[in-house]
Amino acid sequence: MNMRDIIAKKRYSEELTGDEIAFFVKGVTNGEIPDYQTSALLMAIVLNGMTDKEMTTLTTEMANSGKINDLSYLGCKAVDKHSTGGVGDKCTPLILPLVASFGIKTVKLSGRGLGFTGGTVDKFESIEGFNVNVDAADFPKLIESNGMVISGQTPDLAPADKILYSLRDVTSTVDSIPLIASSIMSKKIAGGANAIVLDVTCGEGAFMKDIDQARELSKAMISIGKLAGREVVCVITSMDEPLGRNIGNVLEMMEVFEVLQGNGEPDLVEAVTTLAAHMIKLSDAKEKDLSIEEIKDICKTRLSDGTAMEYYDKLIIGQGGLIHSTGSPIYKDYPAEVMRLTAPCDGYITKVKADMIGNASVELGAGRLQKTDELDYGAGICIYKKIGDKVKKGDAICTLYKGKEAVIDEDRLEKAAELAFDAFEYSDEKPEEVKVVLDVCC
Amino acid sequence: MNMRDIIAKKRYSEELTGDEIAFFVKGVTNGEIPDYQTSALLMAIVLNGMTDKEMTTLTTEMANSGKINDLSYLGCKAVDKHSTGGVGDKCTPLILPLVASFGIKTVKLSGRGLGFTGGTVDKFESIEGFNVNVDAADFPKLIESNGMVISGQTPDLAPADKILYSLRDVTSTVDSIPLIASSIMSKKIAGGANAIVLDVTCGEGAFMKDIDQARELSKAMISIGKLAGREVVCVITSMDEPLGRNIGNVLEMMEVFEVLQGNGEPDLVEAVTTLAAHMIKLSDAKEKDLSIEEIKDICKTRLSDGTAMEYYDKLIIGQGGLIHSTGSPIYKDYPAEVMRLTAPCDGYITKVKADMIGNASVELGAGRLQKTDELDYGAGICIYKKIGDKVKKGDAICTLYKGKEAVIDEDRLEKAAELAFDAFEYSDEKPEEVKVVLDVCC
Repeated sequence: MNMRDIIAKKRYSEELTGDEIAFFVKGVTNGEIPDYQTSALLMAIVLNGMTDKEMTTLTTEMANSGKINDLSYLGCKAVDKHSTGGVGDKCTPLILPLVASFGIKTVKLSGRGLGFTGGTVDKFESIEGFNVNVDAADFPKLIESNGMVISGQTPDLAPADKILYSLRDVTSTVDSIPLIASSIMSKKIAGGANAIVLDVTCGEGAFMKDIDQARELSKAMISIGKLAGREVVCVITSMDEPLGRNIGNVLEMMEVFEVLQGNGEPDLVEAVTTLAAHMIKLSDAKEKDLSIEEIKDICKTRLSDGTAMEYYDKLIIGQGGLIHSTGSPIYKDYPAEVMRLTAPCDGYITKVKADMIGNASVELGAGRLQKTDELDYGAGICIYKKIGDKVKKGDAICTLYKGKEAVIDEDRLEKAAELAFDAFEYSDEKPEEVKVVLDVCC
Repeated sequence: MNMRDIIAKKRYSEELTGDEIAFFVKGVTNGEIPDYQTSALLMAIVLNGMTDKEMTTLTTEMANSGKINDLSYLGCKAVDKHSTGGVGDKCTPLILPLVASFGIKTVKLSGRGLGFTGGTVDKFESIEGFNVNVDAADFPKLIESNGMVISGQTPDLAPADKILYSLRDVTSTVDSIPLIASSIMSKKIAGGANAIVLDVTCGEGAFMKDIDQARELSKAMISIGKLAGREVVCVITSMDEPLGRNIGNVLEMMEVFEVLQGNGEPDLVEAVTTLAAHMIKLSDAKEKDLSIEEIKDICKTRLSDGTAMEYYDKLIIGQGGLIHSTGSPIYKDYPAEVMRLTAPCDGYITKVKADMIGNASVELGAGRLQKTDELDYGAGICIYKKIGDKVKKGDAICTLYKGKEAVIDEDRLEKAAELAFDAFEYSDEKPEEVKVVLDVCC
């Protein structure tokens, strides 16, 4: 068996055998296959696709390229949650404490942000003292005391995926349903969960540009799950505008705190409670037999009555995070307003392009262009107007922030302001209402 | 401008600009673009194709990645000839002296063989003393004395093509019309010719498996030629069976000598005289105004009346080759019969699969599997029966040879015998006559 023949098969749209995919993943993991052969195969996969069988084999081989976590110490069915990435997406810090209040114990292994997609690990790390580099040996202890753990991904979690992903990033082979599906699912399978709720974002601020693509990706991941013995539910959510109000690390954690005080934006609350409800349906919590709407109602109550906050405090304190006497976490830096943008005309907001807001936020220092870039935790954007809102010329539409301690580059600020300003579109006519949850596939 | 965006454009089937292609070829040549990005782009080109404009830009950029030869010292219009590769293809050693007899001076830069396609340089190198590593500074002197030069390609001839070719070889991206066309044409343009006759082989023993593919490749090369200011004529020839009788380095040079004595196989003579006639039509020789058939007739006469032989001797002796008192060149080794194969039944020969004969010949040592393999100059195959010939069970169909001085590996001999035996197919019915020249495109 050799890579040249394997590449040729895929180039001519033939189905690769399980042995061929195993040979490839093994060779990638141990470094025996040169990058130039791997990237040629990746491009052939991007353009000629993969069958469900190939995709599942690729996924399980990538999962098995490292350690498969054993979550039996949870003492309950392991339910995981993952988002394909969005702008202003602060669901994880809300969902973890929320489902913990139903007795669902979760080990959440998260990544850092790159480009305009924020990383959950970065957000938690913006809290003074919070440790995201938890030793796997300490997971059971933290689960016992807090009911949840949030940690950075360890290098032994699906290492083949890590290698392939960094190569895909520089060879324009990221945007491919079978490669995205197998990358996500390999990490979820290696993570040890029995059931997985996937937040498949779609729209201009997401990998999947429209609902058809999002459904196709969902179908692929559900199919992999089936063949790999994992229950998968995909919730397709809109990324036509940022989720909630705030974008940026500390800004998002501040919004999380607001939501836990019962003051959440409707779209964010809807996304969080829908995702949480599906996790609960898949779990062995006693509420699993209720309807999704009934569970969502309980979730909404727990977000505003302090129940979820109680679990959130446990999570923060349990992993070393510092909390003010006011109850709010202490952050490494705080947002300082640098510019407020106003509407250039009267009308209704018809678009708040999430990718442009995301990129503006990166320019302000809230995200990374390169993996090695340092973050300005306090930087970001707060948007005041969302799709459907009526504005008058001169009304504030958003504010740009830098960290109090940070120095901002004037050119990048200008670019950020331009992007953020152009992200808003206006019309005289009231646009149709946008829903945040577009579909649920399982 | 960066490679990631260039790859993405081709991945989404967009046309690359001239600047983007120039950036790519320059980066490949100076080593700044990593192989993994190059191979991803190559696979995207293979699967999404290239426009004529892209193909021509790629060709001229690759030609300009090294030195463009100045052939003004020829003192006549420079006409070159190239074959896309075949089994038993010994046209070049025949055409060069033949066209020289019409006053056409040629500088032929040839490659070495790899796989079942033989290399002209290897064939000449099988003659004792013949120097194929001619210093470019000596070309004018040799042209003056012999009317022609045959030499290995210098490293400064389209170096980008060399790098891309070796990468294509290991990433299964060889078989692509735009990449084959631009590779061939870049070397021909850098070679300095004004007009080029291309022998586009087609059939099981060639890159192009059928006449449609061969026509497509021809169309591509003619289009590049037009946009790059070179006259191009493509002669599509059949590679459904080996050309002539002998396959192997010394064996083929022996056959060349036979042809120059007037004893050529009809298919070989037809191919040689057709290609030569088209070169003459493109040249400034006074016979260029005759019809192709008239020129072919003169060529046939000159192959048998000793005229072409005279020029052949000049070429051999002029580049240091040794010649017997009998007039035949002295070879580095001589073929020694190792096995004679016979027909297993009565009937007509319907196929002599050129790729299998070629591969059998490689197993005997006449060709290389790896670039660094040493050749057995005396090894090869002589076929006695061609398509349409009637045979009786037990009739000799071919003989396998090794070099007199060479030691043959028994396993490889067995493999060679099996391949050669299976290359022949039989039927009770006489097959249709096969033509060697299938089409001419210009």
